[in-house]
Amino acid sequence: METVKIKAPGTVANLVCGFDILGLALNEPCDIMEFRLLDEPKVVIHNRDAFDLPTDPEQNVAGVVLLAAIEKAGGNVGFEVTIEKHIKPGSGLGSSAASAAGAAVGANKLLGNRFSTDELIQLAMIGEKLATGVKHADNITPCILGGITLIRSIHPIDIVPLATPDLYVTVVHPQIEVRTSDARQILKQQVYLKDAIKQWGNIAGLVAGFMRNDKQLIGRSLEDVIIEPVRSILIPGFDEVKTRSKEAGALGGGISGSGPSVFMLSETETIAREVGAIMNAVYREIGIENYVYVTTISKEGVQVDGESGVGSGE
Amino acid sequence: METVKIKAPGTVANLVCGFDILGLALNEPCDIMEFRLLDEPKVVIHNRDAFDLPTDPEQNVAGVVLLAAIEKAGGNVGFEVTIEKHIKPGSGLGSSAASAAGAAVGANKLLGNRFSTDELIQLAMIGEKLATGVKHADNITPCILGGITLIRSIHPIDIVPLATPDLYVTVVHPQIEVRTSDARQILKQQVYLKDAIKQWGNIAGLVAGFMRNDKQLIGRSLEDVIIEPVRSILIPGFDEVKTRSKEAGALGGGISGSGPSVFMLSETETIAREVGAIMNAVYREIGIENYVYVTTISKEGVQVDGESGVGSGE
Repeated sequence: METVKIKAPGTVANLVCGFDILGLALNEPCDIMEFRLLDEPKVVIHNRDAFDLPTDPEQNVAGVVLLAAIEKAGGNVGFEVTIEKHIKPGSGLGSSAASAAGAAVGANKLLGNRFSTDELIQLAMIGEKLATGVKHADNITPCILGGITLIRSIHPIDIVPLATPDLYVTVVHPQIEVRTSDARQILKQQVYLKDAIKQWGNIAGLVAGFMRNDKQLIGRSLEDVIIEPVRSILIPGFDEVKTRSKEAGALGGGISGSGPSVFMLSETETIAREVGAIMNAVYREIGIENYVYVTTISKEGVQVDGESGVGSGE
Repeated sequence: METVKIKAPGTVANLVCGFDILGLALNEPCDIMEFRLLDEPKVVIHNRDAFDLPTDPEQNVAGVVLLAAIEKAGGNVGFEVTIEKHIKPGSGLGSSAASAAGAAVGANKLLGNRFSTDELIQLAMIGEKLATGVKHADNITPCILGGITLIRSIHPIDIVPLATPDLYVTVVHPQIEVRTSDARQILKQQVYLKDAIKQWGNIAGLVAGFMRNDKQLIGRSLEDVIIEPVRSILIPGFDEVKTRSKEAGALGGGISGSGPSVFMLSETETIAREVGAIMNAVYREIGIENYVYVTTISKEGVQVDGESGVGSGE
């Protein structure tokens, strides 16, 4: 195979109480990436979108992943890639993870699927490192595998695909900037043990709820007493979006990644659409431009054109 | 029905990373309790063991639960109970929970099963309050329901029966005293966020492992970076028991409740028995008398004579 076209989905990391360990893949938005295999060790990048991202491979999230893939493959191949991003950088929807995971999966496909899932994640983390300064995997993993994934540990890497409950996801991306570094810095280094205990009760409930597809348990467990109270102050309208969404029937939700996007999970499309209308109304009222997505959890993760996903979403 | 005989099992609370939220029921040791319905509102207690527990109902864990059950039932009945304890008080194996849960279930049986599971737990917590000063439910819940249970929240009460994986449990009870109040006091009120994140990754992994009966995932997730490093210093021999048990093939384990008992989970009876021999050897070497139990996870919880359990263990 000489060329391949893939779709890399947006992802929601830090699922409320699951800070740094849980993430899910969305069916929308998705980046589109087309790869061509070259017979010399170089990476050529074309951007087919309005985000003006660097085309120097060393400075591009997909680029550094492709360079690492070349090295890992022995150095005799190269890649030309055309990237059409639909996941806006800085949205909190795993834009850099989509570039990184898409590059790892696209390269792997052209190289005859020689890398394991763990290797794909390791490769993609090189891209996340460039984008955020941290080798985190909580967007990359659901992006590659689909569904809801647990990163039990990064050193050593221990990934647990959990489940794909049939839930609707409504996401609003208010057009404000929340820098990941600021969102990190605002967190306290220490937390109260009693809060940590409450949080791990909710995490255990959330994991059990996802695995049983128990919507009410999921809803009760979608509570974050540690990160959200601190970070939500960086996102205007957050409390109102959350309160009104839950009044409209959403199970719950919170900050997507480190923000500014906010997501809500719902049992029905009707509720999910109403939540979308509420989100849009809240941000219009406070004069902030916004995009709303009403979508579902992706079972597949990165999809290769003409194939079902590489993932193991259940 | 005028009389009923029940078996109330020992329990392991604070399952390693699941401090204050997870517990499991054992098939051994068990307390035996025989109840007789009286036609006047009083509680009569007979102890048929060597523990010299109070027979004044107001001072007895089962007694206060029975008094509360009488009040809840309208005040026209009473109970005579004979208690044969096999779970030593202060062992860390849920001795008071067995008395409390056994009393709640026994009374309920004689009253025609009028109380819901949540009501039984609320009743039994009155006994735990007398014994430990705290209305905690992490021993009571598995004792009543069997299996492994999650207490997602106490206010309001939210109990989630998780699963009953087919694991062997080896428990050693070294004959030393660790007071629950000391074990509480030694804990730091604040913990590092990075440790809390590690802990909730392990909790999520442990819950997923239990629900999937994935022994390797259970083993990898049986790690406590917050409570055990502090509390284990109260238990001589702890580190050696843990290290040697894992070398012998145990999946992992830790302090049972607030100690001094230590438990280990194993996949096979052979390993579980070897672990028991190791535990016994470690404590003999340091000159501490000890009891070892090699048992399995109870599916039923409190068992009523001639019936299968009232529980919902899976």
